[in-house]
Amino acid sequence: MSISVLGVATSKFGELWDISPRTLIKETYEEARMDAHVLSSQIDAVFVGNMLSGVLGNQENLGAFVAETLFQHNSAISAFKVEGACASGGLAVHNAVLSILSGQYKTVLVLGVEKMTDHSPGHVSSALMGAGSEGERISGLTFPGLYAMIARAYMNEFRITEKDLAAIPVKNHYHASFNEKAHYKKRISVDQVMTSPYVADPLKLLECSPISDGVSAVILSESGTTTRSAHRPVSIVASAVATGSLGLRDRTTLTSIRASKQAGHDAYTLAEIRPADIDVAEVHDCFSIAELIALEDMQLCKRGGSGAKAIARGEMTLGSSKKLVVNPSGGLKACGHPVGATGVKQIVEITHQIRGSAGKRQTLRADIGLTHNIGGSGAIAAVHILKGA
Amino acid sequence: MSISVLGVATSKFGELWDISPRTLIKETYEEARMDAHVLSSQIDAVFVGNMLSGVLGNQENLGAFVAETLFQHNSAISAFKVEGACASGGLAVHNAVLSILSGQYKTVLVLGVEKMTDHSPGHVSSALMGAGSEGERISGLTFPGLYAMIARAYMNEFRITEKDLAAIPVKNHYHASFNEKAHYKKRISVDQVMTSPYVADPLKLLECSPISDGVSAVILSESGTTTRSAHRPVSIVASAVATGSLGLRDRTTLTSIRASKQAGHDAYTLAEIRPADIDVAEVHDCFSIAELIALEDMQLCKRGGSGAKAIARGEMTLGSSKKLVVNPSGGLKACGHPVGATGVKQIVEITHQIRGSAGKRQTLRADIGLTHNIGGSGAIAAVHILKGA
Repeated sequence: MSISVLGVATSKFGELWDISPRTLIKETYEEARMDAHVLSSQIDAVFVGNMLSGVLGNQENLGAFVAETLFQHNSAISAFKVEGACASGGLAVHNAVLSILSGQYKTVLVLGVEKMTDHSPGHVSSALMGAGSEGERISGLTFPGLYAMIARAYMNEFRITEKDLAAIPVKNHYHASFNEKAHYKKRISVDQVMTSPYVADPLKLLECSPISDGVSAVILSESGTTTRSAHRPVSIVASAVATGSLGLRDRTTLTSIRASKQAGHDAYTLAEIRPADIDVAEVHDCFSIAELIALEDMQLCKRGGSGAKAIARGEMTLGSSKKLVVNPSGGLKACGHPVGATGVKQIVEITHQIRGSAGKRQTLRADIGLTHNIGGSGAIAAVHILKGA
Repeated sequence: MSISVLGVATSKFGELWDISPRTLIKETYEEARMDAHVLSSQIDAVFVGNMLSGVLGNQENLGAFVAETLFQHNSAISAFKVEGACASGGLAVHNAVLSILSGQYKTVLVLGVEKMTDHSPGHVSSALMGAGSEGERISGLTFPGLYAMIARAYMNEFRITEKDLAAIPVKNHYHASFNEKAHYKKRISVDQVMTSPYVADPLKLLECSPISDGVSAVILSESGTTTRSAHRPVSIVASAVATGSLGLRDRTTLTSIRASKQAGHDAYTLAEIRPADIDVAEVHDCFSIAELIALEDMQLCKRGGSGAKAIARGEMTLGSSKKLVVNPSGGLKACGHPVGATGVKQIVEITHQIRGSAGKRQTLRADIGLTHNIGGSGAIAAVHILKGA
């Protein structure tokens, strides 16, 4: 399997109160289109990754919304909204990839979009619980609460400490300090994480990803497509999606995500590579504990907490002597987490890393990269592997 | 292009207050699975067509929801919610078709689901306006209002009368009287339509499709797949999606739907057939006027209103001497319109018609059938063509 990544772009992530989603979509698409060196008339279909446009904005039919915004006079454009909670972006990429492999579409746009900060945090928290199980909603649980239970279970099982976990957001904020598109560009220390207020014990404020606005775009095409772009060609060589249960209650373990493990395994098989081949990865760090579990589920570190300790020693960090760098964009924690955009932004970031166009946050050497995007507390996962020519 | 339709099923449509969506999904899937003669372990992916589960039920991530409901112990199942307003079902079928053509999945389930009647009509009307444009929402428009403007424009342009339009729901209620799954099985007369109260002038109550609950399921597989099923093999030989504007304001005409015309044209091209080859069609009759325009856009009758007059003469009706039968299920008007299920139910109905398993509503001869499903007032359209072996 091989799909060409022709162009990528992302808007700034953050509290974007002075720009409408429509304008943000136009600007980000135009940047991706210029990057891809394609004409709008070459785009056959649009896959929109979005979770909450209906609940928060009373705007459904977002595929058609994007199509009319970008391709007003072209009725031949097909358009789809693909939703799978926080994995909506990754699922949109997956369906876009399949649509090209089908032969029905040649060149497609994937657009991840979320506008969240116009609403009260309580309203957004409640809307996000749409990704959980009914039982969890009825119990009054929120996502910080769910991941706090996961963190507590992990700490009990593997004897890691709150301080071990604190190293993860410190790394991601450090990375985001080099990313002009990031929601938070401020570096933080382990001490600052440890003294920040508890959101849901043992998770503290500086371990939780923010509510963000943002749009990310990727233009994909058939294998071997070339354009006037001077960038190193990048391909998606694996796209896999797997599922688990919506609620924590129905799982045999809380310290590993079944959907992630399966999607990771399937992606490595499709790409015919081993986990050790990954140079750079964007994983779903909605909370500190989530990055640690993601690293283990992707087989990028050993099970049992050694990943957190490696990060505390400076590994997986830009500038480390070891090759693997994780979340160079700043991850969900510091780059931000506009839900539907996240999975698309991961592809944008890995493409930049492999091209060598990541600027100040460029890893030393990136030939093979991985993205890992999950929905809910692990009900669904999308894993992509990208490779440079 | 060719995709095998292995199995189909639909729940009863209507006000289903005594059964949960989860149970309805289980029962309908099981019926489709038995019809297909496949094991659950053969299903690779699920495409869920749904519009309003988030807004009305605070349940998003419906792909994962269906996966855990039906395939609890199989993490290898991929799952997606595809949304495009009232075309969500048709778009889910389209993406399922592409996923099989891609080669990544062999056998997939498409499940259309909507639970609408637990909410106040005002709440549902407002939620449905998520399919419209922002300007239409701000103006206080509803879908009956939008289609009333379309009907008025049509009546002005082509000099047809309210009585001409009344024949359409009369036909569809007649068809539904043979359909035990229909929301309304009662036959109605032109007089009853004409004397029913105006919902939005010139559209009267008996010209408007109802708010319904329901689930429909289709199991698709690679071309040429055979199972122990004794039914005549049926294939999808074309699947096309096209787009227009969300709002009426941005259209050059109100009396034809650009997205429908394009998707119809593309589907005929893909299937290499002419409109005159269609024996039976399920078209999107959310309002009487919508069926008339759909017939014209699908080139199943001439532009200018002759379709309504033909229906008034008894054509396109079960038992007519002309071959084409339209909306044998009863259509959205009488079979019901659980939004996300509608586009999937259309495939179920045409499959039964081609198999010859449609019971009392069987058309005399059906080798080639068409489904036409639109989202919003025509922002997006999905057209499928099915063929018997």
